[in-house]
Amino acid sequence: MTMTQRVLPDHPLLNVRQFRPTEDQYAWTFGGVEPVHSVKPGEILELYTEDCFAGRIRGVEDLPGKSIEFPFINPQTGPFFVEGAEVGDTLAIHLIDVSPARDWAVSTTVSLFGSLSSTRVTASLQEPLPERTWIYRVLEEEQEVLFQALDSDFQMRFPLQPFHGTIGVAPAAFEARNVLVPDAFGGNMDSPEVRAGATLYLGVNVKGALFSLGDGHYTMGEGETCGAAVEGAMNTVLSVEVVKGVFCEWPRLETDEALMVAGSCRPLEDAFRISHAQLVRWISDSLGLSLMDSYQLVSQAARSRIANVVDPNYTIVAKVPKRFLPADVTWMEGAHERLRRLGAEYMRAVGRTPVWAPG
Amino acid sequence: MTMTQRVLPDHPLLNVRQFRPTEDQYAWTFGGVEPVHSVKPGEILELYTEDCFAGRIRGVEDLPGKSIEFPFINPQTGPFFVEGAEVGDTLAIHLIDVSPARDWAVSTTVSLFGSLSSTRVTASLQEPLPERTWIYRVLEEEQEVLFQALDSDFQMRFPLQPFHGTIGVAPAAFEARNVLVPDAFGGNMDSPEVRAGATLYLGVNVKGALFSLGDGHYTMGEGETCGAAVEGAMNTVLSVEVVKGVFCEWPRLETDEALMVAGSCRPLEDAFRISHAQLVRWISDSLGLSLMDSYQLVSQAARSRIANVVDPNYTIVAKVPKRFLPADVTWMEGAHERLRRLGAEYMRAVGRTPVWAPG
Amino acid sequence: MTMTQRVLPDHPLLNVRQFRPTEDQYAWTFGGVEPVHSVKPGEILELYTEDCFAGRIRGVEDLPGKSIEFPFINPQTGPFFVEGAEVGDTLAIHLIDVSPARDWAVSTTVSLFGSLSSTRVTASLQEPLPERTWIYRVLEEEQEVLFQALDSDFQMRFPLQPFHGTIGVAPAAFEARNVLVPDAFGGNMDSPEVRAGATLYLGVNVKGALFSLGDGHYTMGEGETCGAAVEGAMNTVLSVEVVKGVFCEWPRLETDEALMVAGSCRPLEDAFRISHAQLVRWISDSLGLSLMDSYQLVSQAARSRIANVVDPNYTIVAKVPKRFLPADVTWMEGAHERLRRLGAEYMRAVGRTPVWAPG
Amino acid sequence: MTMTQRVLPDHPLLNVRQFRPTEDQYAWTFGGVEPVHSVKPGEILELYTEDCFAGRIRGVEDLPGKSIEFPFINPQTGPFFVEGAEVGDTLAIHLIDVSPARDWAVSTTVSLFGSLSSTRVTASLQEPLPERTWIYRVLEEEQEVLFQALDSDFQMRFPLQPFHGTIGVAPAAFEARNVLVPDAFGGNMDSPEVRAGATLYLGVNVKGALFSLGDGHYTMGEGETCGAAVEGAMNTVLSVEVVKGVFCEWPRLETDEALMVAGSCRPLEDAFRISHAQLVRWISDSLGLSLMDSYQLVSQAARSRIANVVDPNYTIVAKVPKRFLPADVTWMEGAHERLRRLGAEYMRAVGRTPVWAPG
Repeated sequence: MTMTQRVLPDHPLLNVRQFRPTEDQYAWTFGGVEPVHSVKPGEILELYTEDCFAGRIRGVEDLPGKSIEFPFINPQTGPFFVEGAEVGDTLAIHLIDVSPARDWAVSTTVSLFGSLSSTRVTASLQEPLPERTWIYRVLEEEQEVLFQALDSDFQMRFPLQPFHGTIGVAPAAFEARNVLVPDAFGGNMDSPEVRAGATLYLGVNVKGALFSLGDGHYTMGEGETCGAAVEGAMNTVLSVEVVKGVFCEWPRLETDEALMVAGSCRPLEDAFRISHAQLVRWISDSLGLSLMDSYQLVSQAARSRIANVVDPNYTIVAKVPKRFLPADVTWMEGAHERLRRLGAEYMRAVGRTPVWAPG
Repeated sequence: MTMTQRVLPDHPLLNVRQFRPTEDQYAWTFGGVEPVHSVKPGEILELYTEDCFAGRIRGVEDLPGKSIEFPFINPQTGPFFVEGAEVGDTLAIHLIDVSPARDWAVSTTVSLFGSLSSTRVTASLQEPLPERTWIYRVLEEEQEVLFQALDSDFQMRFPLQPFHGTIGVAPAAFEARNVLVPDAFGGNMDSPEVRAGATLYLGVNVKGALFSLGDGHYTMGEGETCGAAVEGAMNTVLSVEVVKGVFCEWPRLETDEALMVAGSCRPLEDAFRISHAQLVRWISDSLGLSLMDSYQLVSQAARSRIANVVDPNYTIVAKVPKRFLPADVTWMEGAHERLRRLGAEYMRAVGRTPVWAPG
Repeated sequence: MTMTQRVLPDHPLLNVRQFRPTEDQYAWTFGGVEPVHSVKPGEILELYTEDCFAGRIRGVEDLPGKSIEFPFINPQTGPFFVEGAEVGDTLAIHLIDVSPARDWAVSTTVSLFGSLSSTRVTASLQEPLPERTWIYRVLEEEQEVLFQALDSDFQMRFPLQPFHGTIGVAPAAFEARNVLVPDAFGGNMDSPEVRAGATLYLGVNVKGALFSLGDGHYTMGEGETCGAAVEGAMNTVLSVEVVKGVFCEWPRLETDEALMVAGSCRPLEDAFRISHAQLVRWISDSLGLSLMDSYQLVSQAARSRIANVVDPNYTIVAKVPKRFLPADVTWMEGAHERLRRLGAEYMRAVGRTPVWAPG
Repeated sequence: MTMTQRVLPDHPLLNVRQFRPTEDQYAWTFGGVEPVHSVKPGEILELYTEDCFAGRIRGVEDLPGKSIEFPFINPQTGPFFVEGAEVGDTLAIHLIDVSPARDWAVSTTVSLFGSLSSTRVTASLQEPLPERTWIYRVLEEEQEVLFQALDSDFQMRFPLQPFHGTIGVAPAAFEARNVLVPDAFGGNMDSPEVRAGATLYLGVNVKGALFSLGDGHYTMGEGETCGAAVEGAMNTVLSVEVVKGVFCEWPRLETDEALMVAGSCRPLEDAFRISHAQLVRWISDSLGLSLMDSYQLVSQAARSRIANVVDPNYTIVAKVPKRFLPADVTWMEGAHERLRRLGAEYMRAVGRTPVWAPG
């Protein structure tokens, strides 16, 4: 288990550390796992994450039912112990860069999984849908992925829009949760908003927060309808900060353009209720607006996004563009702004721009 | 009950008819109501629709519980009998222009209504939230509406994005449904996609289709969280066509940029399932893609939109941009393209551009 | 359309009227239909109701998809105009006797219907379950029905427990609702509690109330899992009363042993919430208990029953045995007690006892 | 941590062991906890379980928000390591006796908990319901509990019907779940069927199964509407067996009279679907009935019970009386029958009869 230090020539002040897990180092739960490393706020982490199939589905003949075995699905890189993160604080994770680590990716249907199929819990007596595997090519120059139909010659290109389907901290109440679950601790939210340029705020439930991430998606439709995105390994760069004494009950997201809250629950309307009620209260508290005025503002300004309707909990992200909020307000004690600057400095140092970022 | 003919100078071939209902002419159900007029495919209708409060809430002191009485909420202009529309056909309604008819609009909370409140059916023993009324000014030059908080000086401008919350035909099975209900016949879907430039396809359940519309929204957040948009009277121009021998089971929408299906049900995941399953099948049938390939395409390309999480059924609109579909396919026998051209011709004739249209 | 008077020898004071609809007299909606007859409170009605398949499925080869056509499913006997019933009153319908009218009955699976299948709204891309038809024999002496498996020699006897799946009044808000729908107006609740000896209270939404009934079930498991009970024609005797100036928002039921409220909605937890909140408030209001004390009483004393998890709305019946309530309280102004006595008098006059009644 | 052996005079062959946890020995999760003791199949355990409030609410002034702190709610006695239980087996837990350990019990409302309140996930902006505490007296002779209203002199007696709200094994997939959660591993199902005379079957996910139990209820209405039953400490006697090579995906229950399956999920209809689909398959497999014939049998014979509509997952128990199944079938390899005989022998030895048992 090794995390190495990397020195960027001419940028000696950027504290860059690299970690690529070996096969036995992946985490299969949030909580209940020892940290792979400690990290300090302000350090920059260059991480590798494997795809949700643990890299075992590589051709159209590799079907999930034969190639992977529950619960060894959705390997997570981490968890990382964040120095200074105490119960009741909030961990801010800023994604600086999220880049495909391969020139191909994969999507599948999985038996009794997906929103247009009966499942283990939305149980029926019908025959399951068949398992199928699609392999996508990454067209690097065009920044696209190429969809090749299985039963005809049909092809289509979708834009490369990489993000992390899964990112979270250890849950509260001594729980350890399977990596397919999204909940108050983050986890498998499958929200395209978790991309380069975004800062995710997660309430700290255990000392060190113990965050991990994985489930890279090269692109995905809203809802992750069939149960899988265009899944691929990622090279991801991030940095963290600890917001002391502020506890986010549910995951918040901030970009230069918007504030968001992710709610995860069943039925789907409860995910909607959580995310919007939390956003109403966050704005009300931060602006000093009355609760009813904040309710009205969110009702007319929110651009709500369905993240997934397939996981053990469904996720909706309530989002208010910052242009509908006063310009002079600092959110979450300015963590996003500081991390954003740090990220920009890093990207300049390495001479890259993110593939897909808000704004 | 009068519908008048209007002649546009220099455009004698455009068949324009005007209708503004008197107070006793509004419809309060879809189905079960006699038509106010017959219309011919290709005619252009200039209509007036009253706001969802029947125009009775005009100041912050006018609260819904005192000003309006169920079921006299959400008055509909219509229904119109479409010549040639038979059971089993589909009615295509193209919105040419949707423009605010007033320089103010209104939003409210309504007791036991809205997604962040218990309701008549999501019943609790808690005290209801208070009823409040917000009045918005339309800033015509800026094409914005002005939000004025009730409990502080806070103001904010939202873009003017007018659309119709409610539009539908008579339901099947001899039903008459309250105008607050969205379902397979359309109705109170509250989707911002129902705006100028869009064509709505509704399966015809009774001879003449009997469509009506209302519930103008000057702008709205996704989900209509508090239960009301920025509600206002509208001047709306539309035209219709009948697609013979094709029956849309659920409402479809087409713009120059996208295909969509609206699903309305509870719980919210069923609205998601309806809209996405219908979209998968529509694309599969039209392109000759296998069902599983179409499922995969929709899963990676869909931009799903929450319309409402407050009405008797909740609505989600599944949407695939046309840029992810072959360019040479004609959808719904080309109805949208023909109506779009007719609409463009009308707008040129009157020298206007729509306030808010896709693209 | 004829309703005939019947004189019971030696009981000249019992006002008995008989009605058996002809095939073209059935109602297919609640609301939107002219009454077949007027009835007076205190009259005794002897009615015939056809089974939910309109009598068209008579052998195991008769499959729903071929034998019946939507919306001609679930024919209702009625509606009856009740003299003196005004908007805002409550109609009390007391079932005196509910007896099988045939010595056979039928159950089926229906494509895309039933709780263990995807449906039109809980949409999936899977193949539907097959349609199958089971014919039950009524064993009159044993008061049982005989289940004969289709794919083996397996047989089993279930007790004869006849009740009406569907009974309701015209809805509010000018609506007409399909006869498969349960809602605040009653309708297709599929609750075994609607049996001989029970009084159903329905709020009156239109002058005359316009009640109708049908969908006889010879027996049924809770939930009506596969979508059909053991369906059969019924000979049903009932009488009505009008409770003036009291409006039941949701259907209430009273027997000698229990008070109940039926809630119908989706998701199923909302049916639970409606029925229990209404029952808490009914008991609180009637006993003068505080709302919180009534909440506690219902929480510990309720025996809640799943009625259906298959119809357009799902139904749960919250039930508190009267032995957990003060003995000296009169519910709904004593309507049940009066109707119960009238029913008992009738049953003595005709020399019968009900097949299945509470207690 | 001590488990003591007890010798019943004249019954030296009954292997009786006693365990009463000290305050620091309670478990707060299923999974993730070391076992307190090993037990052998066939041993009889005499256990003490504390009430769900950890014994800290003892008077009407003790409110949950002040007296208890999450996650120290619902302490479990255990977990016990069962010798011979391997992954893929099923653990059979037979409750021999479930008796109140105190002459009083307690119920409360808890802020943002309960089915007639908004909650942390069915979020609203309304004020929470007040927290209240009710103390019940146990009337031992009458075998009743006495409800005393808080806001009036109203009193009512409910029958003493003791059962365990919570009982489960360690979950699969390395998870540790909070003790308020019901799921496939059992847990906080809150089903009154988990009472003396019943055998609970739980699939074994980790070596030794690691079962624990608690949350004694002296009585409860179906649904646990307000979020708490009449909660009390218990003296419970049980024995276990391991059914080798058979894995129950969801909890099964068997009594002398009935077969049951518990499904736990949200929305509530999914709990219904799980439990009924599992029961249909169990009966189909055991009887050699076709799936569709078993579907029909369950549809007409099931008596489904709502267990809870308040916990993180809601629970429904699908139940088919054995009188509707062939008499000569052995279920789960006869585990219930053997454990039932052992339990009867014990009860004769100690000269007791269970307070409340099926049949």
